[in-house]
Amino acid sequence: MIKNKRPLILVTNDDGITAPGIRTLIKVMNEIGDVVVVAPDSPQSGKGHAITLDAILECNPINIDEGAQIEYSCSGTPADCVKIAVNEILNRKPDLCVSGVNHGSNSSINVVYSGTMSAAIEAGIEGIPAVGFSLLDYSWKADFSVLEKFIKKITLQVLEKGLPDGVVLNVNFPKTKVLKGIKICRQARANWVEEFDKRSNPQGKEYYWLTGKFVNLDKGEDTDEYALENDYISIVPVKFDLTAHHFIQNLNSWF
Amino acid sequence: MIKNKRPLILVTNDDGITAPGIRTLIKVMNEIGDVVVVAPDSPQSGKGHAITLDAILECNPINIDEGAQIEYSCSGTPADCVKIAVNEILNRKPDLCVSGVNHGSNSSINVVYSGTMSAAIEAGIEGIPAVGFSLLDYSWKADFSVLEKFIKKITLQVLEKGLPDGVVLNVNFPKTKVLKGIKICRQARANWVEEFDKRSNPQGKEYYWLTGKFVNLDKGEDTDEYALENDYISIVPVKFDLTAHHFIQNLNSWF
Repeated sequence: MIKNKRPLILVTNDDGITAPGIRTLIKVMNEIGDVVVVAPDSPQSGKGHAITLDAILECNPINIDEGAQIEYSCSGTPADCVKIAVNEILNRKPDLCVSGVNHGSNSSINVVYSGTMSAAIEAGIEGIPAVGFSLLDYSWKADFSVLEKFIKKITLQVLEKGLPDGVVLNVNFPKTKVLKGIKICRQARANWVEEFDKRSNPQGKEYYWLTGKFVNLDKGEDTDEYALENDYISIVPVKFDLTAHHFIQNLNSWF
Repeated sequence: MIKNKRPLILVTNDDGITAPGIRTLIKVMNEIGDVVVVAPDSPQSGKGHAITLDAILECNPINIDEGAQIEYSCSGTPADCVKIAVNEILNRKPDLCVSGVNHGSNSSINVVYSGTMSAAIEAGIEGIPAVGFSLLDYSWKADFSVLEKFIKKITLQVLEKGLPDGVVLNVNFPKTKVLKGIKICRQARANWVEEFDKRSNPQGKEYYWLTGKFVNLDKGEDTDEYALENDYISIVPVKFDLTAHHFIQNLNSWF
């Protein structure tokens, strides 16, 4: 961040540009810097780090509600939004990219499926400090106002201190009236146990809906799941170098 | 793997069930175990770790070509294919999941965007040893036959030795006539520099095609890019715990 200059902040999400969560994020960011919103024109939950290679992308100025922000609605995925913002919309590299506030958890293994976090990771890949914010409440009417002061605090710290190359932050807020504070955590080893809902269409052809149950078998007290269960905000520093360095030496003996 | 019993092997990919790459993989796996193929009915490149939450999934038996394998064509993403295979198609947990052979590279940062690797990672999340295979040749007519003995060797090692919890393998083959051997590598720090191709539709409305140029600034000789440039097969052990453990202590001092 250039001192004495308002930072340029890129805002995106995966629930779509009209979602209440991103409106909260825009409101807080307007207090901190110059805000440009480039967000999907429709919900993109569960899109992981998808990018659009087989279809065209549209990206158009839009005015959703009042405020100093400039907004663009994009036909692509969250990762597409970051790419198009950085390469076609913004006239300089942003000082920060924030994504969210997601309606629903992106803790533990959810980070892998998350469109919200893929936008933050995409920004990180492009060398931009980035944070994904999520609230453990799927409701469109969730109360985001209690999060505002924490979002501001975390954002200001990132702008002041920066993040190491290759690291972005995954911030999750528990669904609670009383937030106890912030815990720095590791990603819990958890997974979804799928429960496919098998049905037949009117012509008798079978199809499935993907549903599932989240199972956390990781009892560590340093995990994001533990923090969230105990009404703390979890921050996991996330990297996109997926190398399992601890297994390289062993693997070397195989061949 | 249960000794003296043929392993149950799940095969999938992201180029679609009819792609030459997956046909090669099926051929090799038929020599090793009992093969069930559950693969996308259409190309899914660049789909990252997307899962289908907002649409129905169809999964139907199909017979693409000869061989002992049983095959299913699925309307979803590679990650969906693994989920539906494990939960609805197979009557026991497979001993191995292999994905590919992808038509094109999944080395370095491509692992993040890769449908091929998302299938392997999804299997890893479900506790199944998994390997993604990719060839650095986008051509549908690429020669996969030279890869067969290496695919078999790597697969047999995984079945014999197993993989640690939370680790899957990302195997990339260089485009070369003479494969020099196998190198265990770390993921290179590289990225795509986007070049959006801006056009106008017949009504004058602007749209974009996403294109880009791969840039590797990581000069390390222990990277996958280095191995591949020097005609070696790269194997990167990949994990889906994305926690940047090295930054936790520093981050703890922030709040």
